Amino acid sequence: MYDELREEVCKANLKLKEQGLVIYSWGNVSGIDRPNGVVAIKPSGISYNELMADKIVLLDLEGKILKGDLHPSSDTPTHLELYRQFEGIGGVCHTHSIYATIWAQACREIPCLGTTHADNYYGSIPLTEELQDSEIRSDYELNTGKVIVRRFKDLDPLKQPAVLAANHGPFTWGKSPGKAVENAVVLEQVAKMAFGTLLLNPDQKPILQALLDKHFLRKHGTDAYYGQTRQE
Amino acid sequence: MYDELREEVCKANLKLKEQGLVIYSWGNVSGIDRPNGVVAIKPSGISYNELMADKIVLLDLEGKILKGDLHPSSDTPTHLELYRQFEGIGGVCHTHSIYATIWAQACREIPCLGTTHADNYYGSIPLTEELQDSEIRSDYELNTGKVIVRRFKDLDPLKQPAVLAANHGPFTWGKSPGKAVENAVVLEQVAKMAFGTLLLNPDQKPILQALLDKHFLRKHGTDAYYGQTRQE
Amino acid sequence: MYDELREEVCKANLKLKEQGLVIYSWGNVSGIDRPNGVVAIKPSGISYNELMADKIVLLDLEGKILKGDLHPSSDTPTHLELYRQFEGIGGVCHTHSIYATIWAQACREIPCLGTTHADNYYGSIPLTEELQDSEIRSDYELNTGKVIVRRFKDLDPLKQPAVLAANHGPFTWGKSPGKAVENAVVLEQVAKMAFGTLLLNPDQKPILQALLDKHFLRKHGTDAYYGQTRQE
Amino acid sequence: MYDELREEVCKANLKLKEQGLVIYSWGNVSGIDRPNGVVAIKPSGISYNELMADKIVLLDLEGKILKGDLHPSSDTPTHLELYRQFEGIGGVCHTHSIYATIWAQACREIPCLGTTHADNYYGSIPLTEELQDSEIRSDYELNTGKVIVRRFKDLDPLKQPAVLAANHGPFTWGKSPGKAVENAVVLEQVAKMAFGTLLLNPDQKPILQALLDKHFLRKHGTDAYYGQTRQE
Repeated sequence: MYDELREEVCKANLKLKEQGLVIYSWGNVSGIDRPNGVVAIKPSGISYNELMADKIVLLDLEGKILKGDLHPSSDTPTHLELYRQFEGIGGVCHTHSIYATIWAQACREIPCLGTTHADNYYGSIPLTEELQDSEIRSDYELNTGKVIVRRFKDLDPLKQPAVLAANHGPFTWGKSPGKAVENAVVLEQVAKMAFGTLLLNPDQKPILQALLDKHFLRKHGTDAYYGQTRQE
Repeated sequence: MYDELREEVCKANLKLKEQGLVIYSWGNVSGIDRPNGVVAIKPSGISYNELMADKIVLLDLEGKILKGDLHPSSDTPTHLELYRQFEGIGGVCHTHSIYATIWAQACREIPCLGTTHADNYYGSIPLTEELQDSEIRSDYELNTGKVIVRRFKDLDPLKQPAVLAANHGPFTWGKSPGKAVENAVVLEQVAKMAFGTLLLNPDQKPILQALLDKHFLRKHGTDAYYGQTRQE
Repeated sequence: MYDELREEVCKANLKLKEQGLVIYSWGNVSGIDRPNGVVAIKPSGISYNELMADKIVLLDLEGKILKGDLHPSSDTPTHLELYRQFEGIGGVCHTHSIYATIWAQACREIPCLGTTHADNYYGSIPLTEELQDSEIRSDYELNTGKVIVRRFKDLDPLKQPAVLAANHGPFTWGKSPGKAVENAVVLEQVAKMAFGTLLLNPDQKPILQALLDKHFLRKHGTDAYYGQTRQE
Repeated sequence: MYDELREEVCKANLKLKEQGLVIYSWGNVSGIDRPNGVVAIKPSGISYNELMADKIVLLDLEGKILKGDLHPSSDTPTHLELYRQFEGIGGVCHTHSIYATIWAQACREIPCLGTTHADNYYGSIPLTEELQDSEIRSDYELNTGKVIVRRFKDLDPLKQPAVLAANHGPFTWGKSPGKAVENAVVLEQVAKMAFGTLLLNPDQKPILQALLDKHFLRKHGTDAYYGQTRQE
């Protein structure tokens, strides 16, 4: 029961390590079975070497554990809030990858400075507000989810599938756990390129709207013509 | 038919991955059979793990598909324009490698700051103009080729076998697909060195013309004396 | 006798190489058997390829060699001073890892700029004073230990298990040799992130005390709820 | 005849590739048999994958080829000049490693900012003058050797076994080819650390003379006490 989901979530977590985005037990990926409202997530503090599908924890959308002997990731309440509020997403990923975290720590949004960015994110990578003392002291992880959702009030999470939690690091998501991880890998590249671009030219402006439209929509629009599946 | 060309183009594409210049399905390399005007190029959106010679697409110089069940790279019209206008080239390569893309995003040419650069490129790495809205909205990939060709109006593409497409990333080329990839690998090193040089010394000037001549011509001139094949 | 300690210390030293923190024979890790006051440490100038448990040197807390045919690390007097003064520690590690050393050479403490830092170190990474000429000329390695201890006069070494020796590099420690190494690995990540953060935003301030408390204490406090062992 | 020297020089060249200091056929290492005045050096433009001991070229100190079917490295005249003028050296190494080259291109000496540097080089890494047009146009490689030798007029090449050729890159040397390569590897680390240090703190001054003495002499002085061979 939900073996396939656990397998998929396990594999997505292991990708984080393979791609060099995490060390030790850092980072976590989850996935959701939407029809049944069941979320699968990495257990807390388990190193990637020991991770197997049957250690993945199953919960409902309110956080009740359905299956699993281990504690779920301490970031679980953040993931659940994102699943409750962002209807179209099927996977969530959190890392402390170096360059995305640099931007989060610098409390700066990542402007769209080139087509690598535009191919994947329809606009700048948003930054959350800083949490207030009271939001940190109780229900911290839930409030991390809420501050992300507030930031997306006027944004479409499927077109901008990444956020920088201020002073913390990136959360990404996607249609599936694997896609959430891919968005984390690409974000790290984009973050490194934007970092270098502004060191070289501090006044560099974001690209033209037409160029952003072109690159994002040739991959993700209804008339997409990148790749092998297209409307013809 | 054209099996050798497809094999060569396939291998050159796989080099991009081996050399760490690309992730996922990013980047593309093509090659041309000049006598027959047949171009071979990577299919669109195919990951490097799945790439084999018989997936390489064959086209004529106008873009008509001659062989291949897959869609060719979405950047194909850029490659074709370069083959049509730069007579001496046998291969074209496009990546979003980190440091070359940083310069492209910063909209700065890479000045020739040392002999590593001079060994391979006879002068600074040119930057294209930014495309206009109308050039982006229709025939974008063809126009990317055209803006590169315009930039080379007074330059010799075989002496400066690389360009930075503004807000985008590098295109390189060479006598063969393999040489185009080599030029992309070297460009990434040169871009990283130039980046660091200007961070350390923002006022650093390009090297003397005599030093540029010496290094470029000892490898590439008619009196070249680097390597094992030389005029004696 | 003490075979297990030597094995543990040997493995912890080899981790330095695996994790890319050292080259050649650089760096050293030690461990202590507290009940017996016996310290095990890497021999001096031995490359990691040749390192085996029976080459680990055993000493008492005053530096008298108890077992081992090789000279102990030249940094041994620093390790011994830390064991004598920091009662709770079971392992000490010294490296010249790139980014931590950059901060040490720049003579700047690493401010706590994000939760990656706060997860592991309860406040900024302290910097020692520079040693005086006379402290360098005689008993240099002992004085390196003393200047670290002076810096921790009002700090808890188990909550801030790392220090930057000015003009030199990091020392880290922990409950065990393995934990000391882990603290060195994490310090390098934190140092790289803080470096990038201040390049991007030179005026960035340390995170709120509430956020520091939250992250450090959810992993290390008496009410810790990260990982699988917790008070319930 | 000289098989051992060729083997040693071949292995030292292959280390350049292993250590990530070179790509393609870049870089070269030589060694010398002092009693017989025979120099062994890498052939020109040969990739590291194809390099074997019997491809290493043997020459006398005036550049006459004694053995070898291949052309020697185009940088041979630089190596020979160093052997002729620096009596104590047994090996020479040239690379375009990224960070050392950044300093060479920025035309800045690398100041001694920490003990990693002081452990290996007794003072800053010297920078040559730029070559004049006439020195570039004829006998360029010999003149590169001469400008290095001029820079060492008042320096001891065995205490500062590295130089930055302005606008070009590093040359290192040592008692043997292997030691020359080790000095190139360490130089790259030192160059990267110094680069980061000055980005973080542009006003950072070199370390105290007492600290430089301590670290250099504990490894290299007559009273050295680092490692396993020492005067007791």
